[in-house]
Amino acid sequence: MAGKEDLKLLGLQVSPFVIRVCMALNMKGVSYDYVEEDLFNKSELLLKLNPVHKKVPVLIHNGKPICESLVILQYVDELFDGRSILPTDPYVRATARFWAAYIEDKLCPAWMGIVKAKAEEERAEKVKETLAAIEHVEVAFAQCSNGNAFFGGDSIGYLDIVLGSFLFWFEAVRRMYGLEIINTSKTPLLAAWAEQFGGSVEAKKVVPEADKAVQYANKLHAAATLATELVSSQ
Amino acid sequence: MAGKEDLKLLGLQVSPFVIRVCMALNMKGVSYDYVEEDLFNKSELLLKLNPVHKKVPVLIHNGKPICESLVILQYVDELFDGRSILPTDPYVRATARFWAAYIEDKLCPAWMGIVKAKAEEERAEKVKETLAAIEHVEVAFAQCSNGNAFFGGDSIGYLDIVLGSFLFWFEAVRRMYGLEIINTSKTPLLAAWAEQFGGSVEAKKVVPEADKAVQYANKLHAAATLATELVSSQ
Repeated sequence: MAGKEDLKLLGLQVSPFVIRVCMALNMKGVSYDYVEEDLFNKSELLLKLNPVHKKVPVLIHNGKPICESLVILQYVDELFDGRSILPTDPYVRATARFWAAYIEDKLCPAWMGIVKAKAEEERAEKVKETLAAIEHVEVAFAQCSNGNAFFGGDSIGYLDIVLGSFLFWFEAVRRMYGLEIINTSKTPLLAAWAEQFGGSVEAKKVVPEADKAVQYANKLHAAATLATELVSSQ
Repeated sequence: MAGKEDLKLLGLQVSPFVIRVCMALNMKGVSYDYVEEDLFNKSELLLKLNPVHKKVPVLIHNGKPICESLVILQYVDELFDGRSILPTDPYVRATARFWAAYIEDKLCPAWMGIVKAKAEEERAEKVKETLAAIEHVEVAFAQCSNGNAFFGGDSIGYLDIVLGSFLFWFEAVRRMYGLEIINTSKTPLLAAWAEQFGGSVEAKKVVPEADKAVQYANKLHAAATLATELVSSQ
């Protein structure tokens, strides 16, 4: 299947999860309409199409919604012709799914916790969790890449998209808290991979500057502070 | 692919996640060796083959490990001939993956929290989360089953396995705490489905009695109490 499908993506520019879907659609060469959501004031459409999580991305294909970025990536890969996003070998694909789940369940909440933490102690705990998780992902890279530049081999694939979508936020974390989540001494393979990923056509097309992430983090903190003030003034 | 594959499963009889894999392998008609693990004294093999999570199930296929039950289910489905476990239509498959992730990320930690809670307040919180999650799954059943007996249509499929593997633990929770997670008044569709699932050949072959789960919960509580005593006596 390819060509003129009716595709609309509800997204947010600074969301890694949305960036994943944009990359996948671009890699398949399918065009889509993009609608930016304001998560401080969610649209009726978003609330209607993703009533369970109320989150972006939501891909609307011929009027039907698909939610959750990892589910959407697999849907896009299975539905559209073009280069494969997931590995084609069943065992390699199972390994990629295992690590995607690990990145989603362990690494993601840890680094997000760094940004969202309200106290230094909480942040230190999340830093520890993030660094422990990224060491596992370094091992995953050695296992999956087999000496190539990417998790997916010599070109960008599923795990490259899943982890690569976080990189501009990792840079934002470095600017805000001085923490290098990926660095040349402790995770040298991922450091080299991050250079390659950042320089790729696929990433350059959709990944925003880290400044955007810093600005968004500041907006989140301001909203949280305001919420606290409103509660305490009651 | 079918027939004489070298398949070994590291498992635990009372683990819902292991039961999922047993059901899938049986549905595909492939034979496998089963090795019961003692999670209080994990084998060298388990620690070597699943160094990240150190958990069962681990499926060893021709010497290579696959971990995490949802990953294994998809691997088994893709590799072996026989009846499909995941839906074959890409959109229906995406919907099944969405709900499987929901059951795994929201419902599962909630009901497990009921069993593991050390204080009544904590347990009450987990009961609330479980009941909120199961209401969403009731909606999922209406959406997926399309008036049929199972999530997968007229026979057991992916979501039936994913949720059905919890049912004997739900019964254990009822016996231990008097809580009906699925009941005929609030979740009538799931209540009817649970009857069908429990009576199916597929479930009867591998799902243990709820007594086994109650015994295991008691063992977990005794170990936790012992650990607390050991710490406080230091």
